[in-house]
Amino acid sequence: MTDDEATRQSSTNARVRTPAQNAVLALLLEVASTPKPGNVDRERDLGDLRFEHFLAGAVGALPGFDAAAQGDSIGQSFEQAVAGMSSQSGGNTQFGALLLLTPLVQTAATGSLTPERAREVTANTTTADAAAFYRAFEHVDVRLGEPPEDIDAPDARRGEGAVDDVSAADLTLADVMTQSATVDGIAREWTTDFERSFEVADFLGRVSGPISTRAAAAYLRQLSTVPDTHVARRHCKKTASQVMVRAQEAREGDRAHVRAFADALVEEGINPGTTADIVAGGLFIALERGIDI
Amino acid sequence: MTDDEATRQSSTNARVRTPAQNAVLALLLEVASTPKPGNVDRERDLGDLRFEHFLAGAVGALPGFDAAAQGDSIGQSFEQAVAGMSSQSGGNTQFGALLLLTPLVQTAATGSLTPERAREVTANTTTADAAAFYRAFEHVDVRLGEPPEDIDAPDARRGEGAVDDVSAADLTLADVMTQSATVDGIAREWTTDFERSFEVADFLGRVSGPISTRAAAAYLRQLSTVPDTHVARRHCKKTASQVMVRAQEAREGDRAHVRAFADALVEEGINPGTTADIVAGGLFIALERGIDI
Repeated sequence: MTDDEATRQSSTNARVRTPAQNAVLALLLEVASTPKPGNVDRERDLGDLRFEHFLAGAVGALPGFDAAAQGDSIGQSFEQAVAGMSSQSGGNTQFGALLLLTPLVQTAATGSLTPERAREVTANTTTADAAAFYRAFEHVDVRLGEPPEDIDAPDARRGEGAVDDVSAADLTLADVMTQSATVDGIAREWTTDFERSFEVADFLGRVSGPISTRAAAAYLRQLSTVPDTHVARRHCKKTASQVMVRAQEAREGDRAHVRAFADALVEEGINPGTTADIVAGGLFIALERGIDI
Repeated sequence: MTDDEATRQSSTNARVRTPAQNAVLALLLEVASTPKPGNVDRERDLGDLRFEHFLAGAVGALPGFDAAAQGDSIGQSFEQAVAGMSSQSGGNTQFGALLLLTPLVQTAATGSLTPERAREVTANTTTADAAAFYRAFEHVDVRLGEPPEDIDAPDARRGEGAVDDVSAADLTLADVMTQSATVDGIAREWTTDFERSFEVADFLGRVSGPISTRAAAAYLRQLSTVPDTHVARRHCKKTASQVMVRAQEAREGDRAHVRAFADALVEEGINPGTTADIVAGGLFIALERGIDI
């Protein structure tokens, strides 16, 4: 190859985003899509938690995604992504989304991005990954509420303090996720081969319009079909179920209805963050499939 | 260092964004700041040119910034950034900003980010950099209008066709910028040690409030003091001067006045893109200086 050809080649390759770049872009497109009732979006800040904190959080997570793509352990990559995400003053912006994206990035970077291959990546996690996962809590103020009684996993609110428990119990990160699956929608994705993330990606590929409009529709659709576990933890299961029903009603209404629903959720302090995280996961898969922007 | 210490160390380092990450974040914060009369911002798309195209453009430019940080030539890094930026369907989103950011990223990655060191980086460019600069036009539809009569540089509208002219004339990229400085605000930054970019960074550090609010104020301030060369090229010098005066009037008015000015510019099809690019340059410098987000 001549120098000139090498230059051209590198230019052509630059047109394709790496999985780490697509993960950052998925986080950005997720927060840009609007209206996304109850969450920060292009048209809404939530008090001191502002849109720009999500931009900085997404860009900050990049080295963690790069690490995952290069084959570093899932736990360590995730912890690095969380640490980078946290270098802004808004607090926890995308913790759940990073937990979803880290194994998906590694899956995409090492072969085809299928539910089966994603399962292999999560199945390969170790107790060291579990320890890194608990260490990641030290970087952020993840509001977890009281731990549910029906969960055996160490209490994540204890952060690094839980690391010894995990090691003693010989739990892998996949084990921890399995134990949390009933109360955490992201953990449930780990145990169901990322079922909802792939469902969102299919939806995004099926509908038409600007990607941000598609993502907002995907969000409302998910919110209307599965109770948001972040809402269930912060409020209660009943509230999460009610939000699901109200989202269904909003979907059947017009745009004004959706906006009114969005305003109401903000007023009630209800933030369906898990649903937003899953849309980010779906956006990543759609980007890897080459969806047009 | 034990494995544990190594993990902690890497987590701490991840809190600091690399120059390439800061360049991407600068592009994102620039487009997110609003109101930014005449440009796409958080609250405004311009027809088929949408906010999400700028998000994808910013993330796409990353490998080019990484190349600049690693010491690749400015021209080749810039071309790579432009190629990556172009992997979205909105067209040219951040060409000028990339021309500004590429040498600034290399300056920051190799030592302290000062006007003097930035000048050294640009002074080191060669004819190969100039050729790569012209090749970069092949990736985008940069609307340049008629070439002014008082400019000696090869006509960039000819893209790769201009490469032979540059080589024959033995022009470095710095030479090309010098020849364009009277008609292009970005080229002028190259010849004035990035004077306005550093001025914007000083301003951003001096005022208070959310970074996106500061950036919007910096934009209006720049627009009211220097005629936008993109407007001058697309329309005429007189229009650019009029926009400058109207921006000054808007600054003296209230928020409603600024919004009315923004609406008017969109209606008139006036897009002060160079001023927006310079704000991106200023944001990058401010981020490197550690401004809080």
